[in-house]
Amino acid sequence: MGSTKLLLVLFCLLLIISSSSAAHKKKMQARKPCKRLVFYFHDIIYNGKNARNATSAIVSAPAWGNRTLLSGKSHFGDVVVFDDPITLDNNLHSTPIGRAQGFYLYDKKETFTAWLGFSFVFNSTAHKGSINFAGADPLMNKTRDISVIGGTGDFFMARGIATLMTDAFEGEVYFRLCVDIKLYECW
Amino acid sequence: MGSTKLLLVLFCLLLIISSSSAAHKKKMQARKPCKRLVFYFHDIIYNGKNARNATSAIVSAPAWGNRTLLSGKSHFGDVVVFDDPITLDNNLHSTPIGRAQGFYLYDKKETFTAWLGFSFVFNSTAHKGSINFAGADPLMNKTRDISVIGGTGDFFMARGIATLMTDAFEGEVYFRLCVDIKLYECW
Amino acid sequence: MGSTKLLLVLFCLLLIISSSSAAHKKKMQARKPCKRLVFYFHDIIYNGKNARNATSAIVSAPAWGNRTLLSGKSHFGDVVVFDDPITLDNNLHSTPIGRAQGFYLYDKKETFTAWLGFSFVFNSTAHKGSINFAGADPLMNKTRDISVIGGTGDFFMARGIATLMTDAFEGEVYFRLCVDIKLYECW
Repeated sequence: MGSTKLLLVLFCLLLIISSSSAAHKKKMQARKPCKRLVFYFHDIIYNGKNARNATSAIVSAPAWGNRTLLSGKSHFGDVVVFDDPITLDNNLHSTPIGRAQGFYLYDKKETFTAWLGFSFVFNSTAHKGSINFAGADPLMNKTRDISVIGGTGDFFMARGIATLMTDAFEGEVYFRLCVDIKLYECW
Repeated sequence: MGSTKLLLVLFCLLLIISSSSAAHKKKMQARKPCKRLVFYFHDIIYNGKNARNATSAIVSAPAWGNRTLLSGKSHFGDVVVFDDPITLDNNLHSTPIGRAQGFYLYDKKETFTAWLGFSFVFNSTAHKGSINFAGADPLMNKTRDISVIGGTGDFFMARGIATLMTDAFEGEVYFRLCVDIKLYECW
Repeated sequence: MGSTKLLLVLFCLLLIISSSSAAHKKKMQARKPCKRLVFYFHDIIYNGKNARNATSAIVSAPAWGNRTLLSGKSHFGDVVVFDDPITLDNNLHSTPIGRAQGFYLYDKKETFTAWLGFSFVFNSTAHKGSINFAGADPLMNKTRDISVIGGTGDFFMARGIATLMTDAFEGEVYFRLCVDIKLYECW
């Protein structure tokens, strides 16, 4: 076999290897999470009477609202600060494995829609570090996607998608979210 | 040709291929968006009289402010929650193709500067999904860059830069922004 | 040497090169910042008397709080908007090289914990552009990590980790943070 021919064969081989690895990477990046975690978190809004149990409080309201009752029919303009327990199952009384901390605000006059900025903060043997989230939550939809915008510790530099599902809603005081976290960038 | 010499040639070839592909990637990443979108959005602040038309409301103000009038000379400390229509042109009355939802706050005593956390939420045949933004908006500048920190649906895992331009400003009630979205990470 | 044997040798070589380069990339990505910056910023909270010097103001508080005094024992529910000078050393009176602009909120009833959304905004010969941050700040810890979620200008598309350290704290009015910014994605 001449060396030119050999070069050609090798060159093709090289192209095949590199293109197939690129395709594989793309496919993996696009659809298969490098890490997946499912949690529940529990929000109990302060209503003037439940100071001991409340995990969140209304801190801002529009001109027509107040801070012990979610405003109007869609809560437009209410801002809520929270420190909610995270559990592995849907039981409020299970041992918390971390805290969901941050805020949400109701931002639509006609229906319930929220915007979220918060972190999951872990400090257990299972997980150490934090996952940071931001995004729109049209909470009347069965599932809603927000962004994982970063992470620290075990979740160093993480990016991905978190799918939120309302698992329970009692009056205007308690709600429970199921969060399915799919990380597509892991370091 | 001896096999050692051939090995050497192939090795050089390999280096050239890999380095040129790396350079190409770098250049592409640095300056050419993988997706570009231009939209307008329209903010009508509640002033106590325009409840029907208002798309946003002041929900927080500093001790010296109130929630029906932007405070002081630079609005320092005012937090505004919004659900603004997004249009393809600069006409407030064009059919909205999505909603800009989230908040901004004025954060400087001496001049107008804001900080933004919001999403573009789309649910049309043209676009489904959301784009999440965060960043500083020194709004007296002609153009200002904020970050695209994530996306969902059609904008799955997006990252990039959004350039904001104030397209119109009427009194302290209506303003219109043009947003030039340049995504540099597309999945 | 037969050409088949040569092919085999080259193929192995190829595998070794590609795998070692991948390992190198991983290692670099995981632990060595592509850019590192250390700054201080200074927060002086408005308390009703220091209007001239204050760089921040309480704009939201829970039902039991007010906006000239941080509420209760852990400040739970207080939201603070700030425009703080950034300096290269720990002296409040050094020439600022930029501004830290955004908000933080206290989000725990039992101890001091905050959630931050803000930007470093630079417009000097040394740095032009902005760095955007978000994350949980359990401020009783000596060091806390938050996420760099994006950047513009000199910090185009940046991602990374910022380690916060409380450098000084005087009463409930002044505090100074040291911020060690480690970028792991630079464009």
